[in-house]
Amino acid sequence: MKKNSKVSDAIAGVKRGDIASVSRALTLAADGRQEADELLKAFFKDLGRAQKIGLCGPPGVGKSSLSSRLISLYRKRNLKVGMLAVDPSSPISGGSFLGDRLRIQEHISDTGVFIRSIASRGMVGGLSNTIFSQIHVLEAYGCDKILIETVGIGQDEVAIARAADTVVYVTTPQLGDEIQAMKAGVMEIGDLFVVNKADLEGRDKAVSDIRSALGLGLAAPRVWEPPVSAVSARDGLGLELLLADLDRHEKYLKETPEGRRRLKNQCREELSLYVSRRLYRDFLSKVSEKDIEDLVDHKINLVDLASEILK
Amino acid sequence: MKKNSKVSDAIAGVKRGDIASVSRALTLAADGRQEADELLKAFFKDLGRAQKIGLCGPPGVGKSSLSSRLISLYRKRNLKVGMLAVDPSSPISGGSFLGDRLRIQEHISDTGVFIRSIASRGMVGGLSNTIFSQIHVLEAYGCDKILIETVGIGQDEVAIARAADTVVYVTTPQLGDEIQAMKAGVMEIGDLFVVNKADLEGRDKAVSDIRSALGLGLAAPRVWEPPVSAVSARDGLGLELLLADLDRHEKYLKETPEGRRRLKNQCREELSLYVSRRLYRDFLSKVSEKDIEDLVDHKINLVDLASEILK
Repeated sequence: MKKNSKVSDAIAGVKRGDIASVSRALTLAADGRQEADELLKAFFKDLGRAQKIGLCGPPGVGKSSLSSRLISLYRKRNLKVGMLAVDPSSPISGGSFLGDRLRIQEHISDTGVFIRSIASRGMVGGLSNTIFSQIHVLEAYGCDKILIETVGIGQDEVAIARAADTVVYVTTPQLGDEIQAMKAGVMEIGDLFVVNKADLEGRDKAVSDIRSALGLGLAAPRVWEPPVSAVSARDGLGLELLLADLDRHEKYLKETPEGRRRLKNQCREELSLYVSRRLYRDFLSKVSEKDIEDLVDHKINLVDLASEILK
Repeated sequence: MKKNSKVSDAIAGVKRGDIASVSRALTLAADGRQEADELLKAFFKDLGRAQKIGLCGPPGVGKSSLSSRLISLYRKRNLKVGMLAVDPSSPISGGSFLGDRLRIQEHISDTGVFIRSIASRGMVGGLSNTIFSQIHVLEAYGCDKILIETVGIGQDEVAIARAADTVVYVTTPQLGDEIQAMKAGVMEIGDLFVVNKADLEGRDKAVSDIRSALGLGLAAPRVWEPPVSAVSARDGLGLELLLADLDRHEKYLKETPEGRRRLKNQCREELSLYVSRRLYRDFLSKVSEKDIEDLVDHKINLVDLASEILK
């Protein structure tokens, strides 16, 4: 593969901390074309540098506000923060913007924070299939914390657990019924549970419902007992405690085999996604117009045609 | 590949119209494992038999109610109807059910209707990556109409246009602002526009807004001018006209090159999805535990490891 100067420039720029290069590198990484391979190779060694924090939970629970608060607190500690936020706010234009995320915008002029909104195009289970490449860019830029915020629809909970080190499941007192309906699946994926909008009625009940669901849902006791905290992202209440829990989880991962187990799962997932993209790229170039005509005319079936091309 | 008797039985069952076999075949098709290849081969020749009608639009506009009405009307004409509905109603359990689709349930005892709910797992742009295989099963069962209902989040509008022959974009008078913000993308994808809940205030404005957006958004005049109709799925108003428009679009596709062009695009898309699945299957079996250890230990980077395995 030929080296591409645009890619080399972006790699060098990210390494010396140039924020415009981070932006370009993220775009290259998100596209997932062959030219991004060099980027991936250059940045792969930073794997595992940052704590990747996944934020999931139903839409409307205030994940963006919570992210913004966490960013502020991390910045006070002088940590570098990256954020990848899936943005479904524009189903029609298919565009990707942070227009309505006002709280997030306050960080835009700070070079210690890099926020990238990801369009929901080509996603599986609420996550972009190039999310790992994008994470590598942020790690290479030197981010200590990377927040990954999902849409909160469908299989996000499962997908995020494949990319993040620490999964924060966010809910609110208003979603009492939903909490009661929580299945073991979510219970096992969440490393921390947060009841946001803690100023609303029902906070204590929500917290205790989650606690009892955590107790009931699991046959064997866990080494890590997921803390359940009540916060108010709007008023800034309870966030220092949440931050302490996040630190504690990072430490737990470093000091037990769980950290390595998760990193291995992440690698497995990233490898699969990368290879799918690459094989797909190679295959597409081999399909001719006549192949498609033959399919439509029932001259060959799809399975046999695929076998022929793959030979 | 060895023939699998479970698969052969399902194929034979679908062909003789056994509804339990349709259910089994759809499950096999949805799984997308190698054993489903026989199914795909057997059913591929029915390609293009049914009119595949995609229903898209924002959540809450009443797509399910509308589908149910259309099914009733088609059944009155004695047509066989299949429906594939993406069901995001259970983000937590990841399950797939039609529990809250009461209007749909009225058809459950009718063998001339086959409704399958698709979990939103492993979906790209709101559509299952095995949607084409599932369509083939319904075509082989003899369905004349296949309704495909999407979630209405993110890139559905684009994805559905790749699988359906006729795309119905559903909205309501309440979504006036959204209609005004409609971009050329949606305008070009919708073959029919429906303003549902036409008993609500703002109906006429919604219809005229869509009409003017259709006029403004396109530089060149189209052979097919998308009709915009106001209906009430709840009260059953305006549905016969919608049905007539759907028939007219089917006829238009049959009589112009547009029908073949769409079929070719569908084949191209199906081939890509199928090949991705198949290559992925093959690749996964070649990755060892040691490969993953090497990645985590930074002994090799992901790109080089993938190249080695693919060799």
